[in-house]
Amino acid sequence: MQAEIITIGDEILIGQIVDTNSAFIGKEFNKYGISIYQITSIQDDKTHILKALKEAEENADIIIITGGLGPTKDDITKLTICEYFNDTLVEDKAVLANVEQIFSKYSSAPLLDVNKQQALVPSKAQVLMNHNGTAPGMWLERNGKVFVSLPGVPYEMKDLIKEQVIPKLRSKFKFPYIMHKTILTYGLGESALAERIEKWEDHLPVFIKLAYLPSLGRVRLRLSGKAAEKLIVDREIQNQINLLLPQIEDIFVGYEEDESIEAVIGKRLTEMKKSLAIAESCTGGRIAKSITANAGASAYFKGSVVTYATESKVKLLGVSKSDINIHSVVSKEVVEAMAKNVRTMFDTDYAISTTGNAGPEKGDSDAEVGTVWIAIATKDKVYSEVFNFGNHREKVIVRGTNKAFEMLQKEITIKH
Amino acid sequence: MQAEIITIGDEILIGQIVDTNSAFIGKEFNKYGISIYQITSIQDDKTHILKALKEAEENADIIIITGGLGPTKDDITKLTICEYFNDTLVEDKAVLANVEQIFSKYSSAPLLDVNKQQALVPSKAQVLMNHNGTAPGMWLERNGKVFVSLPGVPYEMKDLIKEQVIPKLRSKFKFPYIMHKTILTYGLGESALAERIEKWEDHLPVFIKLAYLPSLGRVRLRLSGKAAEKLIVDREIQNQINLLLPQIEDIFVGYEEDESIEAVIGKRLTEMKKSLAIAESCTGGRIAKSITANAGASAYFKGSVVTYATESKVKLLGVSKSDINIHSVVSKEVVEAMAKNVRTMFDTDYAISTTGNAGPEKGDSDAEVGTVWIAIATKDKVYSEVFNFGNHREKVIVRGTNKAFEMLQKEITIKH
Repeated sequence: MQAEIITIGDEILIGQIVDTNSAFIGKEFNKYGISIYQITSIQDDKTHILKALKEAEENADIIIITGGLGPTKDDITKLTICEYFNDTLVEDKAVLANVEQIFSKYSSAPLLDVNKQQALVPSKAQVLMNHNGTAPGMWLERNGKVFVSLPGVPYEMKDLIKEQVIPKLRSKFKFPYIMHKTILTYGLGESALAERIEKWEDHLPVFIKLAYLPSLGRVRLRLSGKAAEKLIVDREIQNQINLLLPQIEDIFVGYEEDESIEAVIGKRLTEMKKSLAIAESCTGGRIAKSITANAGASAYFKGSVVTYATESKVKLLGVSKSDINIHSVVSKEVVEAMAKNVRTMFDTDYAISTTGNAGPEKGDSDAEVGTVWIAIATKDKVYSEVFNFGNHREKVIVRGTNKAFEMLQKEITIKH
Repeated sequence: MQAEIITIGDEILIGQIVDTNSAFIGKEFNKYGISIYQITSIQDDKTHILKALKEAEENADIIIITGGLGPTKDDITKLTICEYFNDTLVEDKAVLANVEQIFSKYSSAPLLDVNKQQALVPSKAQVLMNHNGTAPGMWLERNGKVFVSLPGVPYEMKDLIKEQVIPKLRSKFKFPYIMHKTILTYGLGESALAERIEKWEDHLPVFIKLAYLPSLGRVRLRLSGKAAEKLIVDREIQNQINLLLPQIEDIFVGYEEDESIEAVIGKRLTEMKKSLAIAESCTGGRIAKSITANAGASAYFKGSVVTYATESKVKLLGVSKSDINIHSVVSKEVVEAMAKNVRTMFDTDYAISTTGNAGPEKGDSDAEVGTVWIAIATKDKVYSEVFNFGNHREKVIVRGTNKAFEMLQKEITIKH
């Protein structure tokens, strides 16, 4: 039982937007054992859409189409789907009522004919009502295969997938059980790791797959098990992990949750009723932004400062001028003072701080591009580490952020 | 002349990573008139790779393959490409030297056989040397079609595309000239806009395409012109814009640069030698993060505070307690005090501030979820606006950030 995702719209092909929709669908489907065979992004073009539908129907049992459902002329998906199914468009009264309601609630614009046309759906389609927008989802079946067309607006598509598409698919098909377990390692390259665990890998049972996912200093090992029986998959993955762990003890960081590390940290801080403040320099607000992306962050996150200019580190955070002069602004002394002082300022249990040089040019310090100091402060101590994350600005910022989260996670997880 | 991108790796299909590589390639290719016909994401599976290569060869003249070039067992791309081209792998001395150099410079791990195997390339391939990693790019030709295989690590892939793939493609093929011009409008829905400019749209010449790109309160109109002659495309797009502008005067915001709005703001501030500070509440650091993602931000960005907790707004930013009690923390009085005080704190020319409720729950205020106040402070004034961005947390944060940039852009662009 496999699915294919077809995304329609030139904006993905010309790189104007990144296709986050497919990643979302892939992740959600995966939770329920639905594998994605292929993701295909195509132009808003009738011939191309017909061709993609035909190929998808040959390869997959479930075809999810996103995009191309807006009211304007560049969207021809609905008509093309009609043609593919030898069908005609009919007005759906419930969809029309939804369109009218959305207009009366959110829009000062008059309801136009083009908006009313959103209520036209193929006569063979079941409507999936879109409560967040005017373009409905559509569910069609043929020869036991399911075609679902969804609007491309991410939050409209997401609600439709979660609340309607997945429940309907699960009631129609029986999916195998899938489980992924991702092990995070740090400090050994992909190939050295592969050599070390080669024997173990060679003896994995056929229904368990291993993937190496190297990313910025870490290698994640993803074990994927797939079988009809949940019990068999769960037990065998645990068996395999038990065999593996003794071989990677020195580089094992933990398991990667389905959640981001900052979400895991947030949960832990909430449970512990502890609070966090942040002082960022080279990471420029990315740590705070990642923390506050999680709902409920206000339970533990008090606030942060980005002291980008050297003078702000002195003025706002009270870092000593002589420390900066003697040790430079990218130094152990400065990063530790930042963490210590921001923790006091916001009166929190923990603080993270960063100072470094993300490049491309050297800043107010002679530190090599890529150098980043990260500190953690608690009520009774402050400590720091230095890293070199190479000479790509974005990479330095992302790795600095990840590493800061790793250090904090370690701090709040370890028993002292 | 069309290209297809094939990305290989389960991690995209299961949604573990978002395919930003294809968006990058699409954007870069587009600059040089190379259209992307299709993006296809497939599993790390021999049969599937062979099938995708065959289909791509039928549809496109240039096939770009990313991913699947790591040293470990789950990467079978190189062998499969060999099979597709009826070729064998041979050791490339220059690649081997590159692998050895990278290991001696960046890695404490010993150089293993699996690493040395990175130097094996199909005998018919031209090597595209990867100076950022051990997996080389490979360029193959058959029947006038070009196949390029690149590593999936974004910064390795990006350098190879820019510095090697595009120059080689341009010397081999003659591409038409492509120009996109994107017009930003605000305040009228997609369909009302389409109705208003229908006549103009119907009279567009065939070599100019129009797309409506609605996103979070704005509709972008993207005009794309494509022809052999640059002069013809440029002139006709300008003609069409001249015809269009009088019809959308009331909703016209500006042109969307290829750059992000924050990059445009950064350039303008640098030219003007002006500086910026930020005080964020509900946007949680996202504004600062977007500003500092641009190299050279230290020329104008002094720093920011994220005062997430109400108490931090008082303690750090000196917002008056009675204002908070009387008007609530999500109010005109509070947001303007935040902007005014953060500007003074960092001693800058401009400041932005936000306070609001991103949801999902109401915070320290009775303001409806989605309510966001945004203020701009300059040396001689402070003003603010209030918005309701709906009830999706991520949407509220993103729209708040975009809107803050729009307000700042207006402030620094308009002649007073």
